[in-house]
Amino acid sequence: MKRIYLDNAASTPVDPQVLEAMTQTLTMCYGNASSLHADGTRAKELLENARSSLSCILNCHPEELYFTSGGTESNNWALKGYSLANRTKGNHIIISSIEHDCVLNSCSWLQSQGFQVTLLPVGESGIVDPETVKKAITSGTILVSVMHVNNELGTIQPIREISLITREKNIVFHTDACQSFGKIGLDAATLEADMISINAHKIYGQKGTGALFIRKGIHIEPLLHGGGQERGLRSTTENIPGITGFVRAAELCYEHHKAAKSQLEMLSGKLISKLSADFQHIYYNGSLEQRIAGIVNFAFSGQEGEAIRLLLMLDEEGISVSTGSACSSNHLNSGGSHVLRAIGRDPVEARGSIRVSLGRFNTEEDIDIFCDALRRILQKLNSNYS
Amino acid sequence: MKRIYLDNAASTPVDPQVLEAMTQTLTMCYGNASSLHADGTRAKELLENARSSLSCILNCHPEELYFTSGGTESNNWALKGYSLANRTKGNHIIISSIEHDCVLNSCSWLQSQGFQVTLLPVGESGIVDPETVKKAITSGTILVSVMHVNNELGTIQPIREISLITREKNIVFHTDACQSFGKIGLDAATLEADMISINAHKIYGQKGTGALFIRKGIHIEPLLHGGGQERGLRSTTENIPGITGFVRAAELCYEHHKAAKSQLEMLSGKLISKLSADFQHIYYNGSLEQRIAGIVNFAFSGQEGEAIRLLLMLDEEGISVSTGSACSSNHLNSGGSHVLRAIGRDPVEARGSIRVSLGRFNTEEDIDIFCDALRRILQKLNSNYS
Repeated sequence: MKRIYLDNAASTPVDPQVLEAMTQTLTMCYGNASSLHADGTRAKELLENARSSLSCILNCHPEELYFTSGGTESNNWALKGYSLANRTKGNHIIISSIEHDCVLNSCSWLQSQGFQVTLLPVGESGIVDPETVKKAITSGTILVSVMHVNNELGTIQPIREISLITREKNIVFHTDACQSFGKIGLDAATLEADMISINAHKIYGQKGTGALFIRKGIHIEPLLHGGGQERGLRSTTENIPGITGFVRAAELCYEHHKAAKSQLEMLSGKLISKLSADFQHIYYNGSLEQRIAGIVNFAFSGQEGEAIRLLLMLDEEGISVSTGSACSSNHLNSGGSHVLRAIGRDPVEARGSIRVSLGRFNTEEDIDIFCDALRRILQKLNSNYS
Repeated sequence: MKRIYLDNAASTPVDPQVLEAMTQTLTMCYGNASSLHADGTRAKELLENARSSLSCILNCHPEELYFTSGGTESNNWALKGYSLANRTKGNHIIISSIEHDCVLNSCSWLQSQGFQVTLLPVGESGIVDPETVKKAITSGTILVSVMHVNNELGTIQPIREISLITREKNIVFHTDACQSFGKIGLDAATLEADMISINAHKIYGQKGTGALFIRKGIHIEPLLHGGGQERGLRSTTENIPGITGFVRAAELCYEHHKAAKSQLEMLSGKLISKLSADFQHIYYNGSLEQRIAGIVNFAFSGQEGEAIRLLLMLDEEGISVSTGSACSSNHLNSGGSHVLRAIGRDPVEARGSIRVSLGRFNTEEDIDIFCDALRRILQKLNSNYS
């Protein structure tokens, strides 16, 4: 049975062209990029070419980009590395209440190290109001971190407005762009964010590769100490196959950006139309307007307790969706998604939503099959909701 | 021109069977291992199968193994994670003076956090005397870290003897086994080390993957906070392709262990015989007896200033060797290799050595071609040394 994969926000399939780039590097380029011989210098060349290509996409200097092992490391590094290196300036950090677990938990750790953390509320729309940032700033604030696109809702945050506020106050601004990179414009120069986290496996690259943009002049402490790779800031033998694959994946996103965006908008539009027409008790989580095409988060009023059963029954029919962030699957047993709680859902509602996330390889037929399966399953569960 | 790669201690080519395992996973298994649907559970299954296979090789429990982004992360995590989590017990750490830069620099960082670090001396043999460990222990010692095999010299450290000393004193013992894993027996139960760092790209796997063994009952703080993967201790979406490749690489090493060891011993023996016969002013760094087959570190008396020129001239002839650790290539411009300094070499000597490191894909012909090239180059440089 051909499966239908509608969980692209958790991880995407590897694009065949990315696989080709990786396989070539895995086969041909085994030198250590720090070695002085030709095998090493070839590896170094591939590394710097990749950095240069990525810097064109992000519109930044190559030396502002540092490769990492993924979004989690990039976010941990940005938050801890900046805070620890700048604690003489202040000990207050501001983040939104809908950040990914790796931002929230890095901040919990920083609290154990004496830092104070303010969590910004969001309204029902799932969007941070820049005014709340302005109000939360104190004389001790050194860092603000607000994600670009929320991973559960798909809502786009006003990061340019926030960065203008932080810029004016001389506070460093970081954004976790793992869910937006390759999907909406991410121009470091225009965004004016000081640090940006991105990764590969959300854009059809391999897991285990990411990057952190650190604007020139920003002082940050390493998370990984060692041989001094990445200009002394991120030691470890560089994962050239992962990096070449990552950058190939980014190039493909940008080469086909318009077509991919249209395709996802069309598919999302069709999905929302069908869902709204077919299921009268459906409601959507987060703004339907200020969001990226591709992520749709919804629930059925009064049926929230059945979300996990729904997911598993869809799975039996060969369809993969999620109930929220993959990294927070354990929340099913707790108070539910912290993102849904933040937009005002109660614990039952916060455990009871379905996230459908579309990607490059989805088709209109996938939407039809999904909606048909959903209808059948809901009929089985409760004839009221058909 | 077919190149001859004699820098396997810096990084190894990827074995075709490893590439096959990785390609299969990259193509077929794109789910996020934290997802609840079949694509996620298949990824989770691959992950746990890999962990289980690796635990058989290391003779430990699967739940004592945590996958990381490589040796540098494993070492940073072991040292910082253990020290920060146990500082109420004491603030003294003991390491050898010939550790990899990532151990040394993690300890420098820990010093900035208030820890005290003792560097153990080594004699000319390049081997730590367990008695020095015993003498260095104070009432505040919480952690000892001594590498299994030195990456520049190939010397094998008496880690079982050291672990017996630390065990008796109730001090945790960590060993960086990145250069020994897959080459000599690494049985966690017998070694009695409490934490062991290993990685993939020294054993014909991909860069960017490693693991840390943490004995049950050892309390360690995460380095990466987030979604709670790896039993809450190492968050980030698991790099299943890298991990399956890593474990396939480890399996291959262990399946062919005896044959590979014989082959490397034969090649090393031939190399040393030829070098000793051909070059009267040669001397070797570190014990020639207590070392793994495959790493030979030598210099030419009075010719040390020419090492980098030698390396580059060999490179022009299509041969890759190194002057020490790839991660410390920048040491060429400083006081030379800290390892060679530790065994008593002066700064000139410590910049003037050649490391040849053999691997699975080397042949007797490679040794002949290398020795011939070396003779020609030295004749060119100085007829005295032919």
